[in-house]
Amino acid sequence: MSLPLASPAARPAVGLDLGGTQVRAALVAPDGRLLARAATRTDVSGGPRAVVEQMRRLVDDVTAGQPRHGLAGIGVCAPGPLDSAEGMVLGIPTLPGWTDVPLTAWLQEALELPVRLENDGVGAALGEWRYGAGRGLSDFVYVTVSTGIGGGVVSDGRLLRGRRRLAAHIGHMTVVPDGPLCPCGNSGCWEAVASGSALGRRAREAAAAEPSGRLAELAHALAGGADAAVLVRAARDGDAAAGRLIDEEASALGLGIVNLLHLFSPQRVVLGGGVAQAFDLLQAGIAREIDKRAMPPFRDVPVVAASCGQDAGLVGAAALILAPPEPPTGAGSAHG
Amino acid sequence: MSLPLASPAARPAVGLDLGGTQVRAALVAPDGRLLARAATRTDVSGGPRAVVEQMRRLVDDVTAGQPRHGLAGIGVCAPGPLDSAEGMVLGIPTLPGWTDVPLTAWLQEALELPVRLENDGVGAALGEWRYGAGRGLSDFVYVTVSTGIGGGVVSDGRLLRGRRRLAAHIGHMTVVPDGPLCPCGNSGCWEAVASGSALGRRAREAAAAEPSGRLAELAHALAGGADAAVLVRAARDGDAAAGRLIDEEASALGLGIVNLLHLFSPQRVVLGGGVAQAFDLLQAGIAREIDKRAMPPFRDVPVVAASCGQDAGLVGAAALILAPPEPPTGAGSAHG
Repeated sequence: MSLPLASPAARPAVGLDLGGTQVRAALVAPDGRLLARAATRTDVSGGPRAVVEQMRRLVDDVTAGQPRHGLAGIGVCAPGPLDSAEGMVLGIPTLPGWTDVPLTAWLQEALELPVRLENDGVGAALGEWRYGAGRGLSDFVYVTVSTGIGGGVVSDGRLLRGRRRLAAHIGHMTVVPDGPLCPCGNSGCWEAVASGSALGRRAREAAAAEPSGRLAELAHALAGGADAAVLVRAARDGDAAAGRLIDEEASALGLGIVNLLHLFSPQRVVLGGGVAQAFDLLQAGIAREIDKRAMPPFRDVPVVAASCGQDAGLVGAAALILAPPEPPTGAGSAHG
Repeated sequence: MSLPLASPAARPAVGLDLGGTQVRAALVAPDGRLLARAATRTDVSGGPRAVVEQMRRLVDDVTAGQPRHGLAGIGVCAPGPLDSAEGMVLGIPTLPGWTDVPLTAWLQEALELPVRLENDGVGAALGEWRYGAGRGLSDFVYVTVSTGIGGGVVSDGRLLRGRRRLAAHIGHMTVVPDGPLCPCGNSGCWEAVASGSALGRRAREAAAAEPSGRLAELAHALAGGADAAVLVRAARDGDAAAGRLIDEEASALGLGIVNLLHLFSPQRVVLGGGVAQAFDLLQAGIAREIDKRAMPPFRDVPVVAASCGQDAGLVGAAALILAPPEPPTGAGSAHG
């Protein structure tokens, strides 16, 4: 593939998505289309310097060795907490050694291109806003439900930032004060109640409680413990116990979504992440919880599946360059 | 008093605060100072037309009969839900007959002045932002804790609006899914758990459970049922049972405040309304809940008492004219 060398606006960007398991990259056209992709297993033991080298190679892979000046820049999404204004990763619980890493500066040095960094939930929200299910909206909330729960909020036509750009940590609303322990240390965060990990834990408990049930059988056949994916499969196969757990999951998701409706008054709620792949199974239960708990003016707000799917983070990372949420010149803002 | 007739910016405005018990009015200088005030018992049975007439008379009272062209305009705060862009009260649960009332148009006709209408929680937030404890901040959350819980959010230098300007219904976050019934019909809203009404209910239960206790005695001496105000007084007198209820209230407030921190990342949280008059008793318990539940980057956000106190709604109503949150020309916005 050859990279167009026309105006900056016409140049593609590379989106990088740093995860605890994989580093993924995509070459993304200005209209949001994925032109090429590559991925590699995250070099956890090598630490940040090794991962920056992996990122450099992934950029070469997706650009097929074409000169880098054909790119508009590099956008990176990473788990938080991070300081996106300063381009610093403050710490990644799943990746040792990633404390106070100036990732933007290191990548700029390695790649000689503009680099922008964003929290993965916020980045995916940007991707859905620019190219997906949030396109054209002035107010929407993106929720990613996978290992944890993250997201981003677009309000009155702008990405919600707040002090230190730390707004929209939506997974850490307490929704059940005495609920299960969350990785953050609090009890009963929405993440602890409704994430894919929480669903997987309930699936394992159900499999253990009924060793001859369909869920246990399926988990055994797939040669792994019962987790969220096995549960979804069992529910699709019509297993009643799995169906009940899916209904519980839908209620738990709906509970948090009702809060987001009342707090942000979005025009739409967009669900992404691994668990959202079972959106068809969850939709009715989420709607039931909204009808039960939301005030009437909020009940007609559509809840839809993300349209960038698992690629929202990659597309959103590229959008940091192609269609940035703030003017690229402003490294910081007036927030104190 | 004579009204200045200089430039529009130098003219005062009248703020009106419509409540289920009282209609209050204040003449407010452009710098937020209250120049005069008046109040009257809300003519509930007379309905909206009678109340508009009450408002007209209150405006005359606070301007001491000076010509109305000396005023920059009239700002009105009322309980929701209302459509502030259209100037319509959609319905007030405590006031029969207030369904779909074009209050802005009626007042404009009666007073021949520009009129702006806002939800009372949002209006009070505006008052604190322009003239009180939120002054100069780009990100803060105002919480009013009285009969219910309401509020407003300033984010990235703008009043958070959302679809139909219905954002920031912060009292209707569900924080205890199986908790007490809320007037909105849901169970376990923050309002149902931590409002002045909820505190009053717990005070009455405690008084009934211990008829010889200080709380019951005080309620009897004050010739009324035990309510939040009696409870606060008993706690100030050192009564242990009342102190425990205040601690519970502080935890319940802290629980919701932690959610607001994670969702909006404010620079400050400002507490107003009747319950906030006991802020000195509540502060330590709120801080304890934040330390327990909030992620580290959010723990240093100050929680302070509103500086406009019970006048935040009046001052905020006037601020709709004196220092409007959006350009006064835009009646609506692009929200769908």
